[in-house]
Amino acid sequence: MSNLLDNYKDINDVKKMSLNEKKKLAREIRKFLIDKVSKTGGHLASNLGVVELTLSLFSVFDLNYDKLIWDVGHQAYVHKILTGRKDKFDTLRQFGGLSGFPKRCESIYDFFETGHSSTSISAALGMARARDLKHEKYNVVAVIGDGALTGGMALEALNDVGYRKTKLIIILNDNQMSIGKNVGGVSKYLNRLRVDPKYNKFKADVEAKLKKIPNIGTGMAKYLEKVKNAIKQMVVPGMFFEDMGIKYLGPIDGHNIKELTDVLASAKDIQGPVIIHIITKKGKGYEFAEKNPGKFHGIGPFNCANGELDAGSSNTYSKAFGNEIVKLAEKDDRIVAITAAMRDGTGLKSFSQKFPERFFDVGIAEQHAVTLAAGMAQANLKPVFAVYSTFLQRAYDQLIHDVCMQELPVVFAIDRAGIVGEDGETHQGIFDLSYLTEMPHMTLMSPKCIDELPYMLKWALGQSFPVAIRYPRGGDSVCLNPVENFKLGKWDCISNEGSVAIIAQGKMVQNAVLAGKKLKEKGIDVRIISACFIKPLDKEMLNSLIEEKVTIVTVEDNIIRGGLGSYILEYVNKLNKKVKIVNLGFDDKFVQHGKSDILYKLYGLDPKGIVNSVLKAAEASHIF
Amino acid sequence: MSNLLDNYKDINDVKKMSLNEKKKLAREIRKFLIDKVSKTGGHLASNLGVVELTLSLFSVFDLNYDKLIWDVGHQAYVHKILTGRKDKFDTLRQFGGLSGFPKRCESIYDFFETGHSSTSISAALGMARARDLKHEKYNVVAVIGDGALTGGMALEALNDVGYRKTKLIIILNDNQMSIGKNVGGVSKYLNRLRVDPKYNKFKADVEAKLKKIPNIGTGMAKYLEKVKNAIKQMVVPGMFFEDMGIKYLGPIDGHNIKELTDVLASAKDIQGPVIIHIITKKGKGYEFAEKNPGKFHGIGPFNCANGELDAGSSNTYSKAFGNEIVKLAEKDDRIVAITAAMRDGTGLKSFSQKFPERFFDVGIAEQHAVTLAAGMAQANLKPVFAVYSTFLQRAYDQLIHDVCMQELPVVFAIDRAGIVGEDGETHQGIFDLSYLTEMPHMTLMSPKCIDELPYMLKWALGQSFPVAIRYPRGGDSVCLNPVENFKLGKWDCISNEGSVAIIAQGKMVQNAVLAGKKLKEKGIDVRIISACFIKPLDKEMLNSLIEEKVTIVTVEDNIIRGGLGSYILEYVNKLNKKVKIVNLGFDDKFVQHGKSDILYKLYGLDPKGIVNSVLKAAEASHIF
Repeated sequence: MSNLLDNYKDINDVKKMSLNEKKKLAREIRKFLIDKVSKTGGHLASNLGVVELTLSLFSVFDLNYDKLIWDVGHQAYVHKILTGRKDKFDTLRQFGGLSGFPKRCESIYDFFETGHSSTSISAALGMARARDLKHEKYNVVAVIGDGALTGGMALEALNDVGYRKTKLIIILNDNQMSIGKNVGGVSKYLNRLRVDPKYNKFKADVEAKLKKIPNIGTGMAKYLEKVKNAIKQMVVPGMFFEDMGIKYLGPIDGHNIKELTDVLASAKDIQGPVIIHIITKKGKGYEFAEKNPGKFHGIGPFNCANGELDAGSSNTYSKAFGNEIVKLAEKDDRIVAITAAMRDGTGLKSFSQKFPERFFDVGIAEQHAVTLAAGMAQANLKPVFAVYSTFLQRAYDQLIHDVCMQELPVVFAIDRAGIVGEDGETHQGIFDLSYLTEMPHMTLMSPKCIDELPYMLKWALGQSFPVAIRYPRGGDSVCLNPVENFKLGKWDCISNEGSVAIIAQGKMVQNAVLAGKKLKEKGIDVRIISACFIKPLDKEMLNSLIEEKVTIVTVEDNIIRGGLGSYILEYVNKLNKKVKIVNLGFDDKFVQHGKSDILYKLYGLDPKGIVNSVLKAAEASHIF
Repeated sequence: MSNLLDNYKDINDVKKMSLNEKKKLAREIRKFLIDKVSKTGGHLASNLGVVELTLSLFSVFDLNYDKLIWDVGHQAYVHKILTGRKDKFDTLRQFGGLSGFPKRCESIYDFFETGHSSTSISAALGMARARDLKHEKYNVVAVIGDGALTGGMALEALNDVGYRKTKLIIILNDNQMSIGKNVGGVSKYLNRLRVDPKYNKFKADVEAKLKKIPNIGTGMAKYLEKVKNAIKQMVVPGMFFEDMGIKYLGPIDGHNIKELTDVLASAKDIQGPVIIHIITKKGKGYEFAEKNPGKFHGIGPFNCANGELDAGSSNTYSKAFGNEIVKLAEKDDRIVAITAAMRDGTGLKSFSQKFPERFFDVGIAEQHAVTLAAGMAQANLKPVFAVYSTFLQRAYDQLIHDVCMQELPVVFAIDRAGIVGEDGETHQGIFDLSYLTEMPHMTLMSPKCIDELPYMLKWALGQSFPVAIRYPRGGDSVCLNPVENFKLGKWDCISNEGSVAIIAQGKMVQNAVLAGKKLKEKGIDVRIISACFIKPLDKEMLNSLIEEKVTIVTVEDNIIRGGLGSYILEYVNKLNKKVKIVNLGFDDKFVQHGKSDILYKLYGLDPKGIVNSVLKAAEASHIF
């Protein structure tokens, strides 16, 4: 047979293939994925898990009519390969290249963008209802992972799906993982549904026995109990879904193309909603990924032959957080840690091993995580919720209503704030400075370097009010002296000479320091201030800058609208003083994917960009 | 018997009462509630429904040790009566008076504040886990309505509850209503659980028959089918919860104190989580409320004798929205309406009756509602999500990720924006101007009067991008000429004389106009501009104000941080022009309950307050 993948042209080519050809194509796709992702980095394990599923979906459905939504979208690589984007895989997740998620601007076959999880059933239901109202005929298929299913909005959607009997195909891609191992009642339930020899044996036994027995007599009562239990087993599979008014089919082997295409074809004919429960293996077909699917979930470039990461892992904010919380927890048993399916990413692995009773992975459930923390704080624990900035957006209302309004001392360790890089638009953490400073009673901090984070965490855990600490992905580019003792609302003045002050926050302080060096080379002194507190502002320092008529340049890796610079502007304006202020940050646009350094440069937040802004501001103020 | 309620002193007094005394006390409490709420207004129906439940809870638990959380908190009036606040009921929901929700500053027995729904299980689980970690012994009880149960975070919490087997008592207060009739698969499921004569008969039948039949013989196969069905019925109740790892008890008559106290007492001894399913009647014991629980959900003062509202209902924004969407929908069958359990409140009743297939009540599920709308927009419908400002906070991430990022033309009809009055802190819609202007691709509008809303809605539905319209609770205080034809980002200049410009938004334009009249009386002309677009700003108009060196006073019923004034400040600052700007709005605090007019005055947003700010600003600018 020739190379099937090279010759794959039309999205429906798979329909003409024999089962053996499909199997061969699956092998070729796996090889392709491993080869490409080993060079670019990306989400490998989840995509290896859906090769057969994607081929089966393309065998049964025609995306020129039917609609397909991937939840989460990082499992859409095979979909991308089959929809004409194979040749762009060298640019995957690179600036200007292929996105790691479905993107409507990339392909007409990307129907909905899904960087955050648990959205697919809602979106698919919307499309299905639109189809019915417009008397159109096509299928809508949502593929949702068992991890994503625990997200509240997926459950809200299931509740609605069952209500109106809208025709809709939901594929539950059950790999028993979100990024880490799945948790919770739903997962426990799915475990029971998975191909269970006991269940099959029981069913066969009961049926056989009932057929044979001619006379039951007085043993009836006891026997009834047995029958009842047996039948309970028979009726349980899928009852959770059937109770919601959704037909359940499964469980199906998600790597068996024949079984998959059969069940998908039959689902097309079902009126009303149906859920197809398929069992897949994350990392399937690549030994190292099968053994360690967490590592190969989102991975950097690696060596195909041994599965080793190319770059040695360096010091990161996540690690510093993870180390410090363990140290603090050793001394204070009221400290507990919460994660929403991000144990390893947030650095909580060691904590979870040392303090399993004090570690709570709630699954993909950020709303619950925040209010759970609020409840714990009410009962005098010291909860720390470690979460990525972009995912904390899910709990905006809970932050306001359950934490800030009641001034409960929850600590938020907000990782991946600012630019996250290759994950792109859906994952950039560029809103938190705005929305968190808008919440009354919230205190918001940002460390200027990794070494400062532990001191900040310690300070935060000593307070009687909510404190959020936001810090970036990865590590440092400059070595700075950490502040060790914080005072509420006191900034850190790194250099105090000159008529221009750069007030920066978090990692932007490092770029400001580098900018300061460049300016020094030109003979220009600037003040550099680390706004370690974003809220409250250091009014005293601002007052003295205003008194001295210093020009202020603010730098933040957040949108400008409502951010740190805006906050300073509001304060200064209220004083009715005339000071020139320039705000650097992200304009009113979403920030695409690409390496952080490229993006900083693009938005003028790199040292050179800051230098230029300082010079321009100084010129306008007739300073230099 | 003497008057039991008058003599009720200690929270545990009910423990000493006989069953008959408890019944009498229940009657007295009902009378008290009807009498008091008829004068102050408030949440009547839900509280009439939990009289027996609250008495039973106080009979079995001791809140000096045990913790009790009401979800939603508007059913906590009886709890307030029994915890020493009976004598303050004349001040209920009045400025400075008793809150309509649990408030930790009011009583040590209010353990958690619950103005928004679906939070209780998370908070209670947090407390229960804290108790276990600290080796303490007390009960944690969450009372959650069946309406609140469909909220995603409640389901996230249930998922977590079943995981660790934490001891926790959840009372599912099933009255088959949220504010309106409940919807969805969960509700359908609960319907099946409710005391069902068929189920009871079936169970008895099967047991009797199986005991009698001595010889089944060849009819076995058919008989098996019957047994299977019968037993299926037997095992179904509670399976939904049992599947999640939570013990299910019920259904229980929620107005039978004996049954309730028995089951609550037995629940205390259960290790691990238990859900007690009780059936109550909203409005129980007050004929008019039983017949029309929706009307008596949150009600103004009314006549006890006939249940009629004191004040005739006047023209409101909600009504104007409801009328216009019907008109527009008659001409365009792509228009659909979505609500999250707020059909009547948002004015969608008429739409729901005229276009039942195009009306979608998703239950308390704002996240799902937004993404459902996004899916519909993707498939070329014109969805309008009508929602209260405070509840849209629940869908912050979906607004960003599913609507704005994909620029999908969803229209948001945001009711109850700004001050909502008596519902207080948890319900004020004072964040939306900030968080919505921060979202790229969002267009945000606000009508200055009721008559302008229909034109705005029409304009919004004609666009190909997301548009949010936010408007206040209630009606107008001033009659103004509506803009009929909008142009993206063009403001409405109401008067154009003078060196001070008041730029106001929504209802604040009315207060600005009244302020303008007062100033005119003093011989002072001010410009009054209605920022009908909050985003995008009218840059042209701002530029000309700046050119003319006009002093700007911004007025908004939103927090100042990040709001309209802040947005204008950012724009003007970027131009590097010197213009005096004063921002009026709410400071960095939550806004308490009380009549809107009192609160406007308190925060200087009433006409007089605006006059004062204008005079002060003019003085500082040396204008007048």
